[in-house]
Amino acid sequence: MTSTSASDTTRDAFLGGRLTVAQPKVGYRAGIDPVLLAAAVPARAGETALELGCGVGVAALCLARRAPGVRVTGVELQPAYAALARANADANDLPLEVVEADLRALPPGVRSRSFDHVLMNPPYFAPGAGTGSADPGRDTALRGETAMADWLDVAIRRLAPRGRLTLIQRIERLPEILSGCDGRVGSLVVAPLAARRGRAPHLFLLQARKGGRTPFRLTDPIRLHAAPRHERDGDDYLPEISAIVRDAAGLNLLR
Amino acid sequence: MTSTSASDTTRDAFLGGRLTVAQPKVGYRAGIDPVLLAAAVPARAGETALELGCGVGVAALCLARRAPGVRVTGVELQPAYAALARANADANDLPLEVVEADLRALPPGVRSRSFDHVLMNPPYFAPGAGTGSADPGRDTALRGETAMADWLDVAIRRLAPRGRLTLIQRIERLPEILSGCDGRVGSLVVAPLAARRGRAPHLFLLQARKGGRTPFRLTDPIRLHAAPRHERDGDDYLPEISAIVRDAAGLNLLR
Repeated sequence: MTSTSASDTTRDAFLGGRLTVAQPKVGYRAGIDPVLLAAAVPARAGETALELGCGVGVAALCLARRAPGVRVTGVELQPAYAALARANADANDLPLEVVEADLRALPPGVRSRSFDHVLMNPPYFAPGAGTGSADPGRDTALRGETAMADWLDVAIRRLAPRGRLTLIQRIERLPEILSGCDGRVGSLVVAPLAARRGRAPHLFLLQARKGGRTPFRLTDPIRLHAAPRHERDGDDYLPEISAIVRDAAGLNLLR
Repeated sequence: MTSTSASDTTRDAFLGGRLTVAQPKVGYRAGIDPVLLAAAVPARAGETALELGCGVGVAALCLARRAPGVRVTGVELQPAYAALARANADANDLPLEVVEADLRALPPGVRSRSFDHVLMNPPYFAPGAGTGSADPGRDTALRGETAMADWLDVAIRRLAPRGRLTLIQRIERLPEILSGCDGRVGSLVVAPLAARRGRAPHLFLLQARKGGRTPFRLTDPIRLHAAPRHERDGDDYLPEISAIVRDAAGLNLLR
């Protein structure tokens, strides 16, 4: 993506039409993952939230829509995505502060603040892993240039005492994420996400608390789809997931 | 436990009566955990297996019973448990080499060898955690004096190239175990164990391979019981678990 002209983007509805987001036709396109991430952030009115790597703003705007009164800030490296995030906030009449920055070099205005919540959906593949995408914007969003340890380090530094970190990631990267959290945040909860019953989880949500001391918990997997196999296009989300995706419900990881 | 006189022990049947094990009346007593551990070790005739902290030998002897031709060695710190493990091997006419030693100071006869499989069911609580038991043998078995990092270090050192580590542990200790495995063994598979549907997993089985390069996998939870709640004494194991516990079946973690 090199420009944000209307012909390069699509407008897609989220949260049952409560949110409409312009995103690049070609490039990284949001699916259900940022919606689930935002649903799992237990933010309340008056609190602050920081999203690292907010892209065009889907997770940050889902959170702002679900939790009025939460002041949401997004950091995005890629200028075209950051511009779309700002435009998306305006178009939806939602307050979202977008900061265009490399998360490893946050500007003083962010670096000097701490947040009640940090959320992130870091790139799913390690830097340099696999074959690159023809689209450099998509490539950065998928593969990243920043090590997972740096994402975690920045996230944890920006958390207020007792603040909560919430992230979504591919299951393959659970060991390195748990290692990166070790001794720096506590009260970890990992909720695996599986497409359907009998399928191994492919993603997980993690929540942790700065200063938390509750022992590590692994929850029962959260299933997305009702059918035992993919039977038709369109969704067949289970009721709990449908409530999140269609009705802007929250997702309590400690169910 | 300070002696092994018959009056201090009970004789308990495992594997549907294929194995009878004397264990202290008072002290650490084996439940289903070592049976599941042994079932998950994919050892074949002609291979070698080392159990660290074998206690009275339940896991090691379950493995020897299920997989004839596997040469099993057990290391046990506590003399009374090691003596019972030897007596149990004899009574069941199963070959089991029992080495009485601190795993942090293995004798040269073990330290010089590598094994196709290492299995372990380390103490479930960190050294010094919680309140101690009145029984010092039980206390060592439950709470340990050896850090988890040392257990993992010794286990991984004793693995032959391509050898497999299999362990069972409380879910709370998953983060420290994944951290301890990081970069030293690969092809990790974690199988959570849950009492019944809808219950969060309380234990997990982990398998890893020295030199393995398959990405980390988390399986669907393995359920133990059929009923949605505890309804009666006696077991109501699901068929797969019953096959392991009653019929000495193996447990493939990659189902």
